[in-house]
Amino acid sequence: MRAVLVIADGMADRPIRELGWKTPLEAAHRPALNQLARNGVSGILDPIAPGVPPGTDTSTLALLGYDPLKVYSGRGALEAVGSGVEVLPGDVAFRCNFATVDKNFVVLDRRAGRIVNEDATELAESLQKIKIKRSLNVEFFFKNTVQHRAALVIRGHSLSTAISDSDPEVAGKPVLEAKPLSGLPEAKRTARIVNYLTQEFHKVLKKHPVNKERAKHKLIVANMVLCRGAGTIPKIAPLSEVFGIKAACIAAVPLIRGVCKVAGMKLISVKGATGTIQTDYTAKARAAVDASKTNDFVLVHVKATDVASHDGNFKQKIEAVQNFDKMLRFMLEHVGLDSTYLAVTADHTTSSVTGNHEGDPVPVVISGPYVRQDDVVEFGERSCAKGGLNRIRGTDLMHTLMDLLGKTRKFGA
Amino acid sequence: MRAVLVIADGMADRPIRELGWKTPLEAAHRPALNQLARNGVSGILDPIAPGVPPGTDTSTLALLGYDPLKVYSGRGALEAVGSGVEVLPGDVAFRCNFATVDKNFVVLDRRAGRIVNEDATELAESLQKIKIKRSLNVEFFFKNTVQHRAALVIRGHSLSTAISDSDPEVAGKPVLEAKPLSGLPEAKRTARIVNYLTQEFHKVLKKHPVNKERAKHKLIVANMVLCRGAGTIPKIAPLSEVFGIKAACIAAVPLIRGVCKVAGMKLISVKGATGTIQTDYTAKARAAVDASKTNDFVLVHVKATDVASHDGNFKQKIEAVQNFDKMLRFMLEHVGLDSTYLAVTADHTTSSVTGNHEGDPVPVVISGPYVRQDDVVEFGERSCAKGGLNRIRGTDLMHTLMDLLGKTRKFGA
Repeated sequence: MRAVLVIADGMADRPIRELGWKTPLEAAHRPALNQLARNGVSGILDPIAPGVPPGTDTSTLALLGYDPLKVYSGRGALEAVGSGVEVLPGDVAFRCNFATVDKNFVVLDRRAGRIVNEDATELAESLQKIKIKRSLNVEFFFKNTVQHRAALVIRGHSLSTAISDSDPEVAGKPVLEAKPLSGLPEAKRTARIVNYLTQEFHKVLKKHPVNKERAKHKLIVANMVLCRGAGTIPKIAPLSEVFGIKAACIAAVPLIRGVCKVAGMKLISVKGATGTIQTDYTAKARAAVDASKTNDFVLVHVKATDVASHDGNFKQKIEAVQNFDKMLRFMLEHVGLDSTYLAVTADHTTSSVTGNHEGDPVPVVISGPYVRQDDVVEFGERSCAKGGLNRIRGTDLMHTLMDLLGKTRKFGA
Repeated sequence: MRAVLVIADGMADRPIRELGWKTPLEAAHRPALNQLARNGVSGILDPIAPGVPPGTDTSTLALLGYDPLKVYSGRGALEAVGSGVEVLPGDVAFRCNFATVDKNFVVLDRRAGRIVNEDATELAESLQKIKIKRSLNVEFFFKNTVQHRAALVIRGHSLSTAISDSDPEVAGKPVLEAKPLSGLPEAKRTARIVNYLTQEFHKVLKKHPVNKERAKHKLIVANMVLCRGAGTIPKIAPLSEVFGIKAACIAAVPLIRGVCKVAGMKLISVKGATGTIQTDYTAKARAAVDASKTNDFVLVHVKATDVASHDGNFKQKIEAVQNFDKMLRFMLEHVGLDSTYLAVTADHTTSSVTGNHEGDPVPVVISGPYVRQDDVVEFGERSCAKGGLNRIRGTDLMHTLMDLLGKTRKFGA
């Protein structure tokens, strides 16, 4: 017996007027999802709690059975770890964006036009070469990940995560000064380091050949690095210890890979799985089927559904759901349903209207040999609310799956 | 976008034999409530937890998003604040009743025949004139509110809420001596003050002209003050801080006004809204519609449904529900449904059979532009249990509403 948990990032939505008040999921052709609902037990799930908009990181921690309210320690370190950047205890790590600013440091584009990986890599390599001034007595590691995304790790004595972001979170506002959020000297020192690096990065970026080339091709330049989510490594026991299982993760997005890495899961890389809307679904599905043969638990994460909704593009979201459904079809046909529990959910609701993560529950289904199959025949936000799981919390799902695998311990006698 | 939360006090009930095992709510003609259910998302809600009978105060705290298990500090201070009596940190406040006792201090009527406001005011003014003996080194403030209800605030050094009630809670038992509930001198001192005041109050009341007049008209006299619910001001952040909203409250009952006041809400007084079965529903509805134009959140509280059930009068309860429904009709027609989330619930179940608050869940509905409309077409204790919200907790509702308004913060990244 094994379990495969497939998470479609931000797949849940709110009803949309233009879709006759259906959600994109409800409007999509989704025969595989509906087959899972027909054969399984469905429900709705609050990743954190009703009405609380989850981050992708906090939700994924919850879906792996960890209580994010207790263990979450910021995005930065998770993303850095997931990007293959080493983060040690004591390090402070940041999620960064390549961005575009004007002369007055006002942000014009928080994603530098979703800069391509090749350009971002060349810029990041130049930034890593910067010699930091001796008096700061600190090291840094900077690495780009997917498109405009990057990670920054600061290593040295007396650092703190209690500093504010330099990222203003919206275009049209100036880059912020990182500020200490506590009176401790560690916080002041860390803020000073971040502000220093922000300046140094800008100096290198504004005259960088890659940007000159971009300007020539009428592309907006990546002349700033915005930092947010100062964090450290969360202190959690690996899944091998918690449930005694061998677990693997198939995800392209560094933040998810980071969460899975700190949970002690094996990270499987799939050629063509990009974390974008053009990701290769079949390659991912095949990798998941393969991984399920040698692992007790496989987490598969698909980002495309969320990308579409952040852009407010519900038609593209329907398409992403339909592609996701094809991926599930492949898994249904190859995964060995008599010995596999196949669960599908979303890590949060993303509204195609607001473009934001929202606190609405997400649909969830568990299909497999011994679930209490219910009457639900469609996988959707509303249909699943009538299912046999009723309304559960994010942390409940993993325990339910592990219990089906016989990997839980009796509490009491 | 704005939200209006309408709370019908104790509206939920248990099935009643004489109603063919329907509840009063289910038996009532309630077209507006049913319209809300048809257009909205419904569910059942445990104000505190399943099987835990909530107080009106703890439930209202929960419905505003505060965890009453963490912040509740007694009824007395909330009621006093809601009556316009100032309560400062360190003060100990009590909910009081004018009551009727015989020569042996046995309680004949805990509400002095639901004494009219005019009589109660005259009595309270006399009580406030009592000169407290110097040696106690303490001040007191006594104010009547609605009918037999009143508030007592004790101010001075070394006071404690750890004292028992003087109110025996049922007729036929003698007035209790307030006793210290801890070994601390503060508790002993506070109990001594309450017992002293009880004696002094009785001395003034028993020979008061108002009571002589009442006796002449064959009305039972208000010759005793019963104290209960020693409390202090709860330490909570105002809603303006928690959610960044402007919030107002329309309620006649001091306890509700007190909860809303400590939550930083504006208290709106409505002429004709009395907190009794004869309350002017239309005036309340109109005030709610007006308030919704200048506030992000408006809480409207109707007491009449609870009064009827405490009296075991399920026919009157049906009538109260039907009046409540007319009030909602007015709101539905005037509130601007394309930009308003209208939510309706009860703060607890009150059984018309036992006359008590019970721990059964209450029905809840949220209607508004982007809710996941479900199949529920009737608002009732059982029909709502099949709704898309499934079963939530009291504290979940406010977060859900605030999330619909875009007033929640993402947890994580």
